[in-house]
Amino acid sequence: MVPSRKNMVLVDGVILNGPTTDAKAGERFVEDACRLIMEEVVLKATDIREKNLTINSYHIDHLSYCKSLKVCEWRPPEELKRLLDLELRDAGEPHHRLLERCQDIIRYSVKTNHPRFFNQLYAGLDYYSLVARFMTEALNPSVYTYEVSPVFLLVEEAVLKKMIEFIGWKEGDGIFNPGGSVSNMYAMNLARYKYCPDIKEKGLSGLPRLILFTSAECHYSMKKSASFLGIGTENVCFVETDGRGKMIPEELEKRVQEAEKEGAAPFLVCATSGTTVLGAFDPLDEIADICERHGLWLHVDASWGGSALMSRKHRRLLQGIHRADSVAWNPHKMLMAGIQCCAFLVKDKSDLLKRCYSANASYLFQQDKFYDVSYDTGDKSIQCSRRPDAFKFWMAWKALGTLGLEERVNRALALSSVLAWGEIHPGGRADEIQVHYVLMEFISLTCMNIEGFIGTSMEKPEYANICFWYIPPSLRQMEEGPEFWAKLHLVAPAIKERMMKKGSLMLGYQPHRGKVNFFRQVVISPQVSREDMDFLLDEIDLLGRDM
Amino acid sequence: MVPSRKNMVLVDGVILNGPTTDAKAGERFVEDACRLIMEEVVLKATDIREKNLTINSYHIDHLSYCKSLKVCEWRPPEELKRLLDLELRDAGEPHHRLLERCQDIIRYSVKTNHPRFFNQLYAGLDYYSLVARFMTEALNPSVYTYEVSPVFLLVEEAVLKKMIEFIGWKEGDGIFNPGGSVSNMYAMNLARYKYCPDIKEKGLSGLPRLILFTSAECHYSMKKSASFLGIGTENVCFVETDGRGKMIPEELEKRVQEAEKEGAAPFLVCATSGTTVLGAFDPLDEIADICERHGLWLHVDASWGGSALMSRKHRRLLQGIHRADSVAWNPHKMLMAGIQCCAFLVKDKSDLLKRCYSANASYLFQQDKFYDVSYDTGDKSIQCSRRPDAFKFWMAWKALGTLGLEERVNRALALSSVLAWGEIHPGGRADEIQVHYVLMEFISLTCMNIEGFIGTSMEKPEYANICFWYIPPSLRQMEEGPEFWAKLHLVAPAIKERMMKKGSLMLGYQPHRGKVNFFRQVVISPQVSREDMDFLLDEIDLLGRDM
Repeated sequence: MVPSRKNMVLVDGVILNGPTTDAKAGERFVEDACRLIMEEVVLKATDIREKNLTINSYHIDHLSYCKSLKVCEWRPPEELKRLLDLELRDAGEPHHRLLERCQDIIRYSVKTNHPRFFNQLYAGLDYYSLVARFMTEALNPSVYTYEVSPVFLLVEEAVLKKMIEFIGWKEGDGIFNPGGSVSNMYAMNLARYKYCPDIKEKGLSGLPRLILFTSAECHYSMKKSASFLGIGTENVCFVETDGRGKMIPEELEKRVQEAEKEGAAPFLVCATSGTTVLGAFDPLDEIADICERHGLWLHVDASWGGSALMSRKHRRLLQGIHRADSVAWNPHKMLMAGIQCCAFLVKDKSDLLKRCYSANASYLFQQDKFYDVSYDTGDKSIQCSRRPDAFKFWMAWKALGTLGLEERVNRALALSSVLAWGEIHPGGRADEIQVHYVLMEFISLTCMNIEGFIGTSMEKPEYANICFWYIPPSLRQMEEGPEFWAKLHLVAPAIKERMMKKGSLMLGYQPHRGKVNFFRQVVISPQVSREDMDFLLDEIDLLGRDM
Repeated sequence: MVPSRKNMVLVDGVILNGPTTDAKAGERFVEDACRLIMEEVVLKATDIREKNLTINSYHIDHLSYCKSLKVCEWRPPEELKRLLDLELRDAGEPHHRLLERCQDIIRYSVKTNHPRFFNQLYAGLDYYSLVARFMTEALNPSVYTYEVSPVFLLVEEAVLKKMIEFIGWKEGDGIFNPGGSVSNMYAMNLARYKYCPDIKEKGLSGLPRLILFTSAECHYSMKKSASFLGIGTENVCFVETDGRGKMIPEELEKRVQEAEKEGAAPFLVCATSGTTVLGAFDPLDEIADICERHGLWLHVDASWGGSALMSRKHRRLLQGIHRADSVAWNPHKMLMAGIQCCAFLVKDKSDLLKRCYSANASYLFQQDKFYDVSYDTGDKSIQCSRRPDAFKFWMAWKALGTLGLEERVNRALALSSVLAWGEIHPGGRADEIQVHYVLMEFISLTCMNIEGFIGTSMEKPEYANICFWYIPPSLRQMEEGPEFWAKLHLVAPAIKERMMKKGSLMLGYQPHRGKVNFFRQVVISPQVSREDMDFLLDEIDLLGRDM
C-alpha cells in the first residue's frame, strides 16, 4: 500500500514521509460499501411496501415477499460462525473480499428496520436520523469541549431545551448518554448527591441504609443501578401495581412510612411512564404529592413512554411529569432516532448535575481558554469520550417538525389500538378479521383482571404494547386450569422458533409476574400499516394452527 | 407526504393503511447526503496529501492548504448559534434546506480526521471501520440477545477472544462498552463484587471503608468511578509517581499497608498503561507482585496504551499485563476504530462478570429459547440497548490484518520519536530543522527532572505523547524564576487561541502537577507524515514568534 518514493525517511524501519494509506483505494472502498448499504439495507427497509399498496394484492405480496426479503435469515451460532469466518489473522484482506463480508453481515443480521420487526421497543428506518448518524461517523467527534465539538454541543443544548419545554419545566439541565439504564443511574446518583453531597467524597460506608422506591413493573435497570451504585438491590423497594401495571400510590406511601420506621433513609422514587412489558403509566401527580410530603426526589423513567409528550392527544398519559425532579427519555424508541439516543433531564438549574459529576480534569477542562468555558459540558458526564447522540434527533425533528413527530406517535398508538380492538373505521375490514383471522383468540393482557378468556370486558390499551396469548386449536376447548396454563406456556416459544426459522416476522414473548408466556407486540415505524397488523395475526395463526 | 389513496382507513384521524413516509424521497435524500459526506468529509480527510508528496513543494502546499482546508472554522458560541439556526419548530423543512444544514454542520465542525488534528487521543480516518460504522447505523442493531444480534454478538466474541490472546491470558471474558471511563467503572464494581459478593444485594452501608489505589497520573475517571459507585473520592489513594509519570511500587506497598493499619479495606489497584497527559506506563510486574501479596484485584487501565500490545517492538511497555485481573483497552484511540470502541476484559472465566452484573430480565433473557442462551450476553452489561462497537474494530482488523495494525502503532511511535528527538535517518532534514525551526526551544517534559531548559539530557519518550513548552523570543534570554514561569504559563493558551482562529492546526495544552501550561502533541493517524511534524513546529513558531 505504500508507494515507493524518493527521499524516503526511515526511522525504526518505518517510512515516515507521506501517508501509509492508499487514500484513493480507501475512498473507492467506502463508495462501493455505501452503494451496498444503500441497496441491501436502506432500499430494502421499504421493499415490500412497493408492491403492497392495495389490500387486494395482499396475499400475492405476502408470498413474493417471503421469498425475497426476510426479517432474519436464522442460523444457529455454530453454523453462523462457520459461514462468517470471523477469525482475525496476521494478513489483511483485499477490498473485494471485504465487500463480500459486508454482504454476508447484512444478510445474516436481523433487519430491525423491516416493517415486520416488532421484537423490541425500537424499529423502522428514519431517513433523517440516518443521515445524521452517517455524518457523525464520518466526522467522528467526541462531545466534551466546545473547542472540539462546537456544533454538536450547541445542538445538544437546543434539543435538551426543547425536550425540557415538552416536559413542562421552565428551565432545566441534562445530558445525552448511552441508554435509559444509564439515565436511571444518573438519576439515582444525583438524587443521592442532593440528599447528602458528602457521599461524593466520603462514600456510603458508615451511612444509614439508603432506600429507593419504584414499581414492581419497573425496568430491570433499577436493580442494576442500585447494585452498581453500591446501594444494593435489597434497598430497592418494589411497590405493588394495579391491574394495568400502574404503581398504587397508597402502597407507595405505606412503604415509605415503613422504611422510615425501620430507620432506613428513603431518598428517591422512580416512577415509570411506559413500562417495558405492559406499557403502563404510573399516576405521576399522586406520586409527586407523596414525594413532596416526604421530601423525596422524583425521577420519572419515561425512556419508553416519554415520546407521548410529543402528541397533544396522548401527552395526558404523563400528566404531572412537570413535577418530576428528573426524567429519562429515549428518542431512539418511538421517535426512531437510532440506537442510542437517550436524554437524562433535570429540573434543577443551579448546576447540581455538574457539581455532582465534575472531576475537573485539567487537560480537558482548562479554565484559561479564550472562550466561555460554560459550553464545555463534558464534566457533567460519567463518560469522557461521548457521542453526539442529540444530533440525530435534532435532524429528524428539523426534517419532520414537531407536527411530524406528533403524527408518528399518534399513528403508532392508533395502529396498536386497531390491533388490540379492531376499531376499524366503517368500510374497513373489522368483520373480515373477526371471521377469517380469529381475533377472538388474541386476549389482551393489558388489563390483568382477566377471569376467563373470551368475551371478558377489557380496558383499552394505553400505549403501544399489545400483550396477548395465542390460543392454538388444541387448547380452545380445554378447561382453564394448571394443565391448560402449563401447555399455553409452551406455545409462544414454539411459535417464536418457527417464526425465526421462517424469517417472516419477529415479535417478543415473555412470562411476566405469574402469567405464562405471552406475546408482546409493539408498533413504532411509520412504514408499518394496517396491512402489517393483519399479517401479524394471520402469520401467528399459520405458525400455530397445528398446535 | 402521504399519498392519497382509495380504501383509506382512518382511526383517530390517522390514516392507517400504507406507510406514511415517502420512501422514494427519503432514499433520494440519503443518497444526496451520502454524496455530500463523501465529498466534504471523506475525500477531504486526505485532501492536502494529494499536493504534498514531495518535501520541496512543502511551502507552496502549506499556503494553498491554508486557503482551502482548515482543521476548524472557528466561531464563538453565540455567533455559531445564529449561523446554524438550531431551533426546533412545528413545521418540518424540505430536503434541499436539510442538505444545506448538513453542509453547514460539516463546515463548522472540527475535522477530527484532518492530518493536523492532534488535539485528543484519537484522530484520523480509517476507511474500514468507517464502513462498519455506516453499516451499524443502517442496520441499527442492539447487542443483547442472539436472536436480535446474531452476527454482532459473534463478532464481539471473536474480537474479545483475540484481544485476550494479545493480553496473554489463556482465556477470559469481556464486554464492549461506551468508554474507558465506563470500563474502569466495570472493573471497580467487579473487584468489589469479588471482594464481597453480598454488596450486590446489601450495598455498602455498614461495611468497612473500601479503598483503592491508583497512580497520581491516572485518568480522572478513577475519581468519577469511585464517586458514582458509592465508594467516595476520598477512598481513592493516589500513589506517587517517578519522574516519567510511572507509579512507584514501593510507594504503593507503603500506602496499602497504611490503609490496612487504619482499618480500611483495600480491594483494588488500578495501574495505568499509557497515562493521559504524559503517556507513562506503570511497572505492571512489580505492581502485580504487590497485588498478589495483599490479595488485591489488579486492573490495568490500558485505554490509551493497550494498542501497543499489537506491536512486537513496543508491547514490552505493558510487560506483566497478563497478570492483571482485568484490562480496559480502547481500539478507538491509536487503532482508529471510531468513537467509541472500548473493551473491558476480564481474566476470570467462571462467569464472574455475569454473576456480578445480571438482573435476569424475563422479557429479554428468557431461558426457554430454542437456541443456546449462553450467547445472550447482554446481561453482563450495565446497559440494556448496546451498540455493536466490536464490529468496527473487527472490520479494520480483517482489512489490515494484525500486521497492518502493528505497522500503524510502530509508525505513530516512530513519528513521535522524530518529533521529540529529530532522529532522522541520514539524508533527512535533522540539520535543517535545527537551523530553521528552532527545535532547541521545544523542551520535552516526558522526563520531569528538568533542571534548565537547553541541553538537558533527557530520556526518550516511551509513547505517542510529546509534551513540550514553546519558549517565545521574549523569554529566551530571561532568567528562570517565578516571573518566567508565570509568563510561560500564558504562552500556550495564547498560541492555542491564534491556532484555533486560523484553523491551521489543533493540539492540546494543559498545566499538570505543578508544571505551567505546556503543549501535548499526539500522533495517531497513518495519514500523518514527517512533513506534518515539520509543519507543527513551524506553525507554532509562526504563531508565537511575536510573543
